[in-house]
Amino acid sequence: MSTNAEIILASRPTGAPVAANFEHRAIEMPTIGDGQVHLRLIYLSLDPYLRGRMNAGKSYVPPFEVGAAMGSGCVAEVMESRNDGFAAGDLVMGGIDWVERQAHSGEGLMKLDGRTKPSYALGVLGMPGMTAWAGLNIHGKPKEGETLVVSAASGAVGSLVTQLGKSYGLRVVGVAGGAEKCGYVVDELGADACVDHRDLDLNAKLAAACPNGADIYFENVGGVTLDAVVPLMNPFSRMPVCGMIANYNDTGAAEGQDRLPFMMRSILTKRIAVRGFIVRDHWEKFPDFLAEVGPKVISGEIKVKETMTQGLENTPAAFISLLEGGNFGKQVVQVGADPTA
Amino acid sequence: MSTNAEIILASRPTGAPVAANFEHRAIEMPTIGDGQVHLRLIYLSLDPYLRGRMNAGKSYVPPFEVGAAMGSGCVAEVMESRNDGFAAGDLVMGGIDWVERQAHSGEGLMKLDGRTKPSYALGVLGMPGMTAWAGLNIHGKPKEGETLVVSAASGAVGSLVTQLGKSYGLRVVGVAGGAEKCGYVVDELGADACVDHRDLDLNAKLAAACPNGADIYFENVGGVTLDAVVPLMNPFSRMPVCGMIANYNDTGAAEGQDRLPFMMRSILTKRIAVRGFIVRDHWEKFPDFLAEVGPKVISGEIKVKETMTQGLENTPAAFISLLEGGNFGKQVVQVGADPTA
Repeated sequence: MSTNAEIILASRPTGAPVAANFEHRAIEMPTIGDGQVHLRLIYLSLDPYLRGRMNAGKSYVPPFEVGAAMGSGCVAEVMESRNDGFAAGDLVMGGIDWVERQAHSGEGLMKLDGRTKPSYALGVLGMPGMTAWAGLNIHGKPKEGETLVVSAASGAVGSLVTQLGKSYGLRVVGVAGGAEKCGYVVDELGADACVDHRDLDLNAKLAAACPNGADIYFENVGGVTLDAVVPLMNPFSRMPVCGMIANYNDTGAAEGQDRLPFMMRSILTKRIAVRGFIVRDHWEKFPDFLAEVGPKVISGEIKVKETMTQGLENTPAAFISLLEGGNFGKQVVQVGADPTA
Repeated sequence: MSTNAEIILASRPTGAPVAANFEHRAIEMPTIGDGQVHLRLIYLSLDPYLRGRMNAGKSYVPPFEVGAAMGSGCVAEVMESRNDGFAAGDLVMGGIDWVERQAHSGEGLMKLDGRTKPSYALGVLGMPGMTAWAGLNIHGKPKEGETLVVSAASGAVGSLVTQLGKSYGLRVVGVAGGAEKCGYVVDELGADACVDHRDLDLNAKLAAACPNGADIYFENVGGVTLDAVVPLMNPFSRMPVCGMIANYNDTGAAEGQDRLPFMMRSILTKRIAVRGFIVRDHWEKFPDFLAEVGPKVISGEIKVKETMTQGLENTPAAFISLLEGGNFGKQVVQVGADPTA
């Protein structure tokens, strides 16, 4: 009578994922055992790092298994609880499978306090927000008056990096895809300038926007933006690296010019500190992040933009689009009704 | 009657320097003015970074001018002094032109204290030694039991990195060119293993020598060694970068595989800290370096190897050879008699 559904990994992609790599299928309703909760999925988060989990082989997160449900950070409602930590009606967030109705142990779930929109727990007040805050503060080491270049500046991470950078007294130069996003980055997020990475004149325009060079490059895209920024990096500059979306679909080493020697020579002569990081490395500072950013989101000082896709079945298309830059702000899929809306 | 001679930059090299880029020519004897000293060159240091100074354009050191004397770190004797800081007979070291007899302002010259061979002030107790000490300690952040991979392990910098690494309780794996150098790195310098970078099986052999991966890669060569090490880097590993000798003669971006995406992905997923540095960034710690390394050189605990070329006129050939790895240990040219020998 009741229907349930999930998204599974049907096959591993070669290069860019296609619709056939996913399957949306009907399944049985769950029953819960002692200690479990019955969850109803409301929002699921789509993030570029999920592309890596579609590959076999270990990375910093385990791969999805072919034939099994995929998952990510999600917001869900507890419909029934046999776990003392949760009660029916609780809204929770955590790592949850892309299954409309599921049994869950409760492990790793956090209750939402209701002070902001629930979906913000997947974006500006969740993993992407913490990525922005930790990367900029811990690895970017910003000093007032410096110049910060932010790639994917209208995205879930970049939009907070941009706004935090301005709040710290930096000159902030965004890089984003297209005039609409660039306009948003300057007009709404407050960046001093924003350059379109599709512009054939990217290098010259970025250089013009950075008259004093770049002291911090917040790297989460790779590709042409990296090439344009490296020549602008100042001595003793910092490059936190939290994503390489431009290369996530690569199937092997690219032919063409070898860009590594120039990069290494730049690192050497300019004494650049390049540092990869992953948000969970700094998870112990999540309360510090929330204490700084939470009130600014509630007050509206920090602007938030979401691309909200409706329906679990549209998750694959939304994810494919995300990897191509089709989102504008944080990409979320609404799977079920939000009781707070 | 008296003859004098110098080495000038005759023309800028394209790619690898050739003999015609240098000129050894006779010049007049100098006369000194108030505040100056008359120097007699004894030893001159040849270092890979000098290749960069043969190019036009700013780098972290100013370029040599075509038609003017080249220079480097040198040891010289004060023959006559009109400077209160120096007296005839003093042995000094500092940045000095490649001119047998020259007038010098005295600026930047340090008197040698005579406790070790004068030429060591150009190697293990000078700039290369300080590079090794600062890179390993400040950027490598070694912890006992970790694995350190050292490129150019028999060279001026690498040989001290290797020996310091062992003294700090690290597993040290050297990379060097040829069986003789590799034997020296293990038998004399005490490395746990050494792999020949010319070995076609470099990747597998280096992996076998690093059963627990690599926590620090002391990078001063680039090229195939870097490619072999990156896959072995552990999470939260460190890569101090103080040289890219494999690429110093590059004339432009190399064709072929683009190695940058793999490097950036590795930096991200393994959270590698890649940090360029130049010895003068840390010059305020030179006394700390000397306090640790000086006594160990005097006692013989730290081994020192030099390749000593005789005659100013042979400097170009020795430099060309250095860039091809023809030296074994620190490359020095003896220009004149050493009064302490």
